[in-house]
Parts: sequence; structure tokens; C-alpha cells
Amino acid sequence: MSAGSETRGPWSWMSGARVYDVTAPLRPDMPTWDDEPGPRLEWQARLADGRDHDLSSFSMGSHSGTHVDAPAHYVRDGGTVERLPVGALLGPAVVVEHTGDADITAADLAALGVDGTTRRVLFKTGNGRLWDDPTFRRDYVALAASAALSVVELGLELVGIDYLSIEAYDSPGFAVHHALLEAGVVVLEGVDLRRVPAGKYLLVCAPLKLVGAEGAPARVFLIGS
Amino acid sequence: MSAGSETRGPWSWMSGARVYDVTAPLRPDMPTWDDEPGPRLEWQARLADGRDHDLSSFSMGSHSGTHVDAPAHYVRDGGTVERLPVGALLGPAVVVEHTGDADITAADLAALGVDGTTRRVLFKTGNGRLWDDPTFRRDYVALAASAALSVVELGLELVGIDYLSIEAYDSPGFAVHHALLEAGVVVLEGVDLRRVPAGKYLLVCAPLKLVGAEGAPARVFLIGS
Repeated sequence: MSAGSETRGPWSWMSGARVYDVTAPLRPDMPTWDDEPGPRLEWQARLADGRDHDLSSFSMGSHSGTHVDAPAHYVRDGGTVERLPVGALLGPAVVVEHTGDADITAADLAALGVDGTTRRVLFKTGNGRLWDDPTFRRDYVALAASAALSVVELGLELVGIDYLSIEAYDSPGFAVHHALLEAGVVVLEGVDLRRVPAGKYLLVCAPLKLVGAEGAPARVFLIGS
Repeated sequence: MSAGSETRGPWSWMSGARVYDVTAPLRPDMPTWDDEPGPRLEWQARLADGRDHDLSSFSMGSHSGTHVDAPAHYVRDGGTVERLPVGALLGPAVVVEHTGDADITAADLAALGVDGTTRRVLFKTGNGRLWDDPTFRRDYVALAASAALSVVELGLELVGIDYLSIEAYDSPGFAVHHALLEAGVVVLEGVDLRRVPAGKYLLVCAPLKLVGAEGAPARVFLIGS
């Protein structure tokens, strides 16, 4: 059979779909959690030095920029990031908008229409403006414990937010992380949703397949219909 | 509007689709190009040591495992990896199977049905077995220069292969990389296609958004219809 007719098929809608890249660019001057080491690029070879190619290596903390948490981040003997279920990383998602500086509660979830038919939810908050500050900011909007419990009860597969943690800074006992990660919910942190309207999308969440790690940076796309 | 009905929509076919994760797991004992530094994980905090969470950082060469090359890898002042067009990274692709130890030629492409309607092609070769060897192997199957020129002439957006380079080891002048990267074709290297039958897929190629780098590891999925 010819490879020619590949543009037919169930994903032909993609040719007209709008794709949002909601990944924070990984660069040394980006905000990173407290003293977590940020992205760093080192050069092994450069065309400018007469070599026949450019060649780099890089390093960073596993929770730099747009990233996922795996259960092992807070759960002893929990699953590491290469074992996150692919089925949770890819599929329908809703972006919902939460205004104000207060943390997101279970009541907010209900008011935003998140219910048992929702599989994945990303919270767009006022956090977007924090990306413009190279210094890590502790005054971000996060999930309250009630919202995390609600996400677990509703059986969501993935929950995401638009700054570096889903949970308030210095939250006692890290109840939000524990609730989500013990239930196997994928936690996606640090998506940049500033250009994305609230609505329904196909989520592509693609973390590095870093064996044994408790989290990893991810490339994340939202595909509109 | 309720978020409830999100499972309807143009991507509802995905609920029954088979997803292949064709990403090589990033681990210290994987084969890497010559003396390119492989993936390395370092621990900042461990639950096992009484800390309240696990926390790591990591490093690797930018062409470790499954990865993309950006134009800057071989082209002076070429585009770096964060600038690769998202439209080329996501969309219909064909996996074609090439048997034998000879490099892939323009005639092979034509015989495999790759033509001007093809947007993205991944070559499944005998390279798959090389992943089982932790030592870098130079005897992999690659594209001949004629095939690279054909890919450019056909206007393909992305071409991939199942070991660490699209071009033979020590190829004179690196004609394959130059032809592809100067034309802006995305080069995807190191996909593991051993479990993937030849055929049509939706390709999700998600490289790290590493600002200024000439390449980056990627998480790559093939979604069957």
C-alpha cells in the first residue's frame, strides 16, 4: 500500500487545529524553585571554533520549568517518572480559569464545571504574570487540600497549574501532593497558559523518560479543535 | 458551560487508539554516541534519608537517546531546538520498514511508497537490535545521501530513524545532515520502533524546549488509528 494517503484518517482534523505550546522555555535565567539548579547548557564543540558541528550537554533540576511530578516525589517506593501511565498524559483536557489570589477549593472546582466526566484539568490563574519575574515567587495561587481531595474523588487522571507547584509554599504536611500522588494522579506544574483561552483541548504532556527520577521536565501542547 | 462533555469532539477516536511510546528510556547504561555523556541522575534529597520528599537533578548530552537535531547542529547560525516548528513535530507520519544492512537510498524511498503526499517518515530497520548493546555501535543502518536529497525534494517535514544517527558514522562532509538541516527538515534520531508495525500513525514528537541548544532529547509517541 502506498504511504501517500496518510493525511486521511481519524486525525485529519489536526490539519486545521490550533496548537498551543504551553511549555516554559528552559533557560538559565528562568525562575526555579528556591535554590533548585536551573537549566544550564555546556558546549563540547562549536562551529564558531572551526569544528564541523555544534554539540552541547545540559543539566537542570528535575522540577525545572514545565514539569511533572511522579508518585516517588512524595511517596516512599512510589512510581518514578518513566512509569507514569501514557494514557493519562495524552487525551481530552479542560482549561478552566480561576480568578483572584485565593487558593482553589473544592467549591471552585464544582463552580468551574469540573465533574466526574472530566479526565484532565489545567488551572489558569493569575500566576501567569509570575513567569516574567526571574526570581522564584512564593505568592502563587495553588490548590487547597479540599480541591486535591475532590480531584481524587472525581477520579481525574491529571491536574495541572500555571506555576511551579500545585501546592502552596510551605504547606503543612504537603497534603495536596500526598493526596494526588498517593492516588496516582499525574501532577503537571509550570504550564504557561497566558495565551490559552478556557475551553476544551487535546492535551499532549510529554515528560522526559528519565529512569528512576521522581519528576521530569515535559514538553506540553494543547491542541484546539 | 460544563466541562463535562469533553470526551466528545474530534479526538474522541483517541479513547480507542493504541499509543506506542517509542522513546528509549534515559539511563546511565544506555548506548550514547562515542564519548557523549549519557544520562546521569543526582539526588538532592531522599525520603529514605528522612527527608519529606525525593528530589533529583540530572545531566546528559543533548543527543542522548531519542532526540532531535535542530539546524544549528550543522548549520552556522541555524535555528536552535526551541525554534523547531511545532507543526512539523505533530501530525500524520508513516513508519516504513527497510530490511538488510545497506543504507537507505532514494530508490528505497520510492519503493516504500514515500512520495510527495508524505509529511513525516520514520524508518524501521535492523537497528532495533542495537539498543540491547550498552556499547555504542557504529554499524547501524542510515540514510544515504540520495535518500536525504529525496526527502528534501519531496518536501517532508520530519524524518526519523531507529538508532542514534540518521547518517553513517564518519560520513564524508556529513552530506545527509547538511542536506536535511539546511532545508529545515526535522531530524529525529534514536526512536525504538521494535514493537511498532509499519503503517500510518499520528506522530507526537516532543523535544525538551532547551533554549539555544542544537538538539534535545524528546519524548515520542506514535498513535494508531
